[in-house]
Amino acid sequence: MNKSIDVPSIKSQGYEQLLSYYLEELGKVGTSEVGLCRRPFTADYEKAAQMVATWMREHGLEVRKDEVGNVIGRIEGTNSQVKVIATGSHLDTVRGGGKYDGMLGVVGGVIAAGYLLKNYGQPEHSIEVIAFTGEEGSRFGGFLGSKWMAGALGEKDINSKDEKGISVKEAATALGYNLSEELIAVRKDIEAFLELHIEQGPVLEAAGCPIGIVSAITGMRQAEVIVHGRTDHAGTTPLNMRQDALLSAVKIIKALDACVRQSGGDTVFTVGQIDANPGSVNVVAERCAFTIDLRDPDPSKLSGLYEKCLEEARTQAAQAGVKIDWQEILTVEPVPCSVRLRETLAAAAKTVGLDCQPIVSGAGHDALMMAEIAAVGMVFVPSAGGRSHCSEEYTPADQCLAGVCVLAEAVRQLAYN
Amino acid sequence: MNKSIDVPSIKSQGYEQLLSYYLEELGKVGTSEVGLCRRPFTADYEKAAQMVATWMREHGLEVRKDEVGNVIGRIEGTNSQVKVIATGSHLDTVRGGGKYDGMLGVVGGVIAAGYLLKNYGQPEHSIEVIAFTGEEGSRFGGFLGSKWMAGALGEKDINSKDEKGISVKEAATALGYNLSEELIAVRKDIEAFLELHIEQGPVLEAAGCPIGIVSAITGMRQAEVIVHGRTDHAGTTPLNMRQDALLSAVKIIKALDACVRQSGGDTVFTVGQIDANPGSVNVVAERCAFTIDLRDPDPSKLSGLYEKCLEEARTQAAQAGVKIDWQEILTVEPVPCSVRLRETLAAAAKTVGLDCQPIVSGAGHDALMMAEIAAVGMVFVPSAGGRSHCSEEYTPADQCLAGVCVLAEAVRQLAYN
Repeated sequence: MNKSIDVPSIKSQGYEQLLSYYLEELGKVGTSEVGLCRRPFTADYEKAAQMVATWMREHGLEVRKDEVGNVIGRIEGTNSQVKVIATGSHLDTVRGGGKYDGMLGVVGGVIAAGYLLKNYGQPEHSIEVIAFTGEEGSRFGGFLGSKWMAGALGEKDINSKDEKGISVKEAATALGYNLSEELIAVRKDIEAFLELHIEQGPVLEAAGCPIGIVSAITGMRQAEVIVHGRTDHAGTTPLNMRQDALLSAVKIIKALDACVRQSGGDTVFTVGQIDANPGSVNVVAERCAFTIDLRDPDPSKLSGLYEKCLEEARTQAAQAGVKIDWQEILTVEPVPCSVRLRETLAAAAKTVGLDCQPIVSGAGHDALMMAEIAAVGMVFVPSAGGRSHCSEEYTPADQCLAGVCVLAEAVRQLAYN
Repeated sequence: MNKSIDVPSIKSQGYEQLLSYYLEELGKVGTSEVGLCRRPFTADYEKAAQMVATWMREHGLEVRKDEVGNVIGRIEGTNSQVKVIATGSHLDTVRGGGKYDGMLGVVGGVIAAGYLLKNYGQPEHSIEVIAFTGEEGSRFGGFLGSKWMAGALGEKDINSKDEKGISVKEAATALGYNLSEELIAVRKDIEAFLELHIEQGPVLEAAGCPIGIVSAITGMRQAEVIVHGRTDHAGTTPLNMRQDALLSAVKIIKALDACVRQSGGDTVFTVGQIDANPGSVNVVAERCAFTIDLRDPDPSKLSGLYEKCLEEARTQAAQAGVKIDWQEILTVEPVPCSVRLRETLAAAAKTVGLDCQPIVSGAGHDALMMAEIAAVGMVFVPSAGGRSHCSEEYTPADQCLAGVCVLAEAVRQLAYN
């Protein structure tokens, strides 16, 4: 067994500066008035993918692109009987996004693989660094690249259209890709997929902890709730004779929030959208629609709490004398990370001398799709102020490198004998 | 002193059918897909005004029009030393309105005056029945006719424009009216103005009471409240680390509602409008704006409660860690009805054998403006289901006539010696 990786040696070999340089360079490719915008199947995206391919080659990786535009850099292993240890993340951004979301996992993977190859030579397991395309839903639906790799990119995804009416298939074809069904080859040769990512939330920073080991990617239940009351004159209708849809919605939202808080744990609950009709200052609202977004990493807690919320909303509505429609929008099941990979990552953090803590990923990631075909593990580094998907997104260079060191040590433990 | 009016004799003389006929005929003049729409300074409005003028003449009233389009029917009194006893309401409608709001007070006044002239002869005080124009704000600002008569129609009102950019002055001029300032003659010759109106709320119907004697026209405070929080990812930000503008708004609204309900009495409080930004299902809202509409007939309670609401909102915002802007939109002071006219109307109800109860007018009426130049009193009759400003607006013919009888008896007591 090789000696574990050494942070001072990584720094002395200039990898920290290189990491910052890669992030800076990628941050220049795209358009947006505020923040970065680099959407899949665009000239900007292709340019960024080309830059990553070049860097991969400079570190000694063999590079190929698949038919959806994922860039895959590979170090061939000595043992063809064992499966691939893969890492990576995505190269596209939201509109007005930052320079770290996705990109850190891509260039961090390139640095980790390059460092390992240079310092430890050829691994037993092949190592792959993957730059996925279209993880954000900023042009089409999300997870295009990882869905393709997992064999989960269906007809519906391929025919979904952007705001100009261009489909995924048309956009891909225009750039020379071929999304034919017969070309989908579900990867069965990957043992583990490790994704390094910024937290996109405030937890690690607040805890002063440099490394989060993701326990699970949270599950999600989204619904639209429509409260049907009765419109009335705001001046002539006594309070106790109203069926006020807006006030009833307010009571329901407050009750649901209380219900979720009482349950404790990692659950988050958000009402992000609300709208009342007719929406006049002097008219009691007839209708009030709002959305709910409920997330928890525990499947049984999530579904139990969702049902409890529905029941609570019905109780509140009955008390207020209004009716509700509760329409489910989206259900995403939680994906637990591999226990073995969590242990490997925690051991890696300890080895390189970094504190770590378990954390739930409240957002979806490519690892979610890769879990269909491989064991997955995720490493989070802090996001300054918890900011993400905005131009303020930031993680200091030394904190980025800390994540890369944990990733590199974990890949070393998995890929080298 | 003459004998008091007699309901069976009014019925046997056919006034109930005539009242229904007038309301039906007026209900045919206007346009709207659902309900009635008759806006000031339109051909439809002029047609309705012409019909009313004709009916007035048929009952023996002398008719004139003033320069804003108010139709005034008059029975000259025997004593030129005493002031006018006036009644009436408005002839315009909201968009999609009903057949009773305003019109009942106009044609009810015509019937009452006609019945009195026919059965009691010439009064001591001159009696006027006024059909006001533009009380609803359906084309320009409201109260055009009664403001004109009270000398309160200012430059701002006259230059206000409809949705096509036509000003009040232009619309009036096109129909031959002349809204020159020098023609404004504030009426100083009116002793009392009595307005018969549908309640536009559910109180009388629920109480099973045919007559409401208005104690005051409510005062109103309207404001827009903007809650400033922080936008965050709905998945990655723990509940206790958020500054959720929408959830904070919900807590503030619930607290304000509780604050108003605790105060008891006639106060009504409405949040009719709410809007959150960015307004996405999976994003914690950065900003949430809502309106409040607070009404009470007691000036000191209204202003005290308004201040208490503002304080409560600030307390709630501070607890939630968000900031609020509180912008006043509109202040209307309450207008108490004349105690003498309330007593006269209550006595009139008793005389004609009808139960009555005091009631607050939660909406504005022409009486609000007429209070500037005369003592005012109002009689309400029930609105079926409390509905108004909609095609379902309805008051049965016998309930309409009951209001006319109370009005006629009160005018008799005031105008005849």
